[in-house]
Amino acid sequence: MHLEPLISPKRVNLRDRDARRPAELRDDDLKDRTEKLTDRLRDLQRAFYADGRRALLVVLQGRDAAGKDGAIRKVFGACNPQGCQVTSFKQPTPLELRHDFLWRVHAAMPPHGMIGLFNRSHYEDVLVVRVNDLVPKRVWSKRYDQINDFERMLTQNGVVILKFFLHVSRDEQRLRLIERLEDPEKNWKFNAGDLDDRARWKEYTAAYTDAIRKCSTKWAPWYVVPADSNRVRDHLVADVVVRTLEKLNPIYPSADPSVLELASTIV
Amino acid sequence: MHLEPLISPKRVNLRDRDARRPAELRDDDLKDRTEKLTDRLRDLQRAFYADGRRALLVVLQGRDAAGKDGAIRKVFGACNPQGCQVTSFKQPTPLELRHDFLWRVHAAMPPHGMIGLFNRSHYEDVLVVRVNDLVPKRVWSKRYDQINDFERMLTQNGVVILKFFLHVSRDEQRLRLIERLEDPEKNWKFNAGDLDDRARWKEYTAAYTDAIRKCSTKWAPWYVVPADSNRVRDHLVADVVVRTLEKLNPIYPSADPSVLELASTIV
Repeated sequence: MHLEPLISPKRVNLRDRDARRPAELRDDDLKDRTEKLTDRLRDLQRAFYADGRRALLVVLQGRDAAGKDGAIRKVFGACNPQGCQVTSFKQPTPLELRHDFLWRVHAAMPPHGMIGLFNRSHYEDVLVVRVNDLVPKRVWSKRYDQINDFERMLTQNGVVILKFFLHVSRDEQRLRLIERLEDPEKNWKFNAGDLDDRARWKEYTAAYTDAIRKCSTKWAPWYVVPADSNRVRDHLVADVVVRTLEKLNPIYPSADPSVLELASTIV
Repeated sequence: MHLEPLISPKRVNLRDRDARRPAELRDDDLKDRTEKLTDRLRDLQRAFYADGRRALLVVLQGRDAAGKDGAIRKVFGACNPQGCQVTSFKQPTPLELRHDFLWRVHAAMPPHGMIGLFNRSHYEDVLVVRVNDLVPKRVWSKRYDQINDFERMLTQNGVVILKFFLHVSRDEQRLRLIERLEDPEKNWKFNAGDLDDRARWKEYTAAYTDAIRKCSTKWAPWYVVPADSNRVRDHLVADVVVRTLEKLNPIYPSADPSVLELASTIV
């Protein structure tokens, strides 16, 4: 099973049942198949870095405990850290708030040859900002077009963009939040605000739906990942990334012929 | 065998024979032992990230083909990319040249919780800069003290610093440069300047020796890694990093008791 990019017609379903493990991915060897994909990713990334003509930007969005950190660790843990940079967008600093919302995002863009992972992103500016009325509607409502324009500019300048919404159901989130609270290696991450967001489940669903509908473009499509199962999540994300890199067909640049002649001169 | 930090007395040997595989590390299972260390590194890094009270800065220096890229891939490939950032310092840009030499280095410092890897570093400003007379001696000769002061300030503010000189012999470098030229996945990296540096082998040896002697401090020691064997290099670097993190004994912060009580409220 491959995830298809959501382009037009802009059908998007964020119903709870769409977060479940798809029937096609019930097999026991899913983990092994994902490992083959991440092995392939390791090789592709090496060539992608050498090729250096494009950057790959992977945007990860999702509710609390949807598995953004896990996807980074499990899928991109295979990458050479020299070719892969992660930016976690937290609550903006006072300086960042004095800039337009794309300023800090633009600054964090991966250069050509690199894979950049965004753990949350500029989409928070039409999600948490919208749900909590942090700016007026007349401000955030213009951002969908602004984002599309920005992302178009990026792709026209060599950045390949993949956007993943890790879709977790309300029940699964409950289990994960409780598990997180009970695990001394995880409960330090917990903050009471996570529960406020959970209380606004429907508002967030509406905001995510709009973000995905309005900003799933040919040049920067959204993928909705059923993420109630971590293994399914890792598999589907790895699969999209690998297929994208394969299509880009990165090649090792050829050396200058004059350089090749140097071999005989090394004493 | 563990590498010892070079502090005072500042004996440092960069003779070719010190680059060879040490007798203690001739065993066949070295790769397995290194893998155990990198597994341990993975766990420690997770806790180090959670702990968030310190940053770890790992400086990698060495001649061309000494194995800086390889050490990053093999040792730190085990890390979660979210907790590990790599900065490669290339020839300074015009803007960087209009700043003091520590400016771009300071900006790239890992924040608390992160492991930062420097592929080359501010030491280039007493290495390539000195050997090629890019600034007058009265300028570069003051930099050793400036570096020591800067690194002291960093360590007093929560950055733990490890500096590795990957020591490769002249013969081994020759083999690697030729191999690089013959490998179509590697020869694109080659530039003729690498050979100019090789032609100045002795001047570089003197410059490295001074950098290590003058800047191996209690707070930021240098480690000289015999790097003619990649496996030895990976093993010794991993060993120092793991022992350093173990000594720091990172702990998962405990959650606020009021947060723990929230579990029963999640519906």
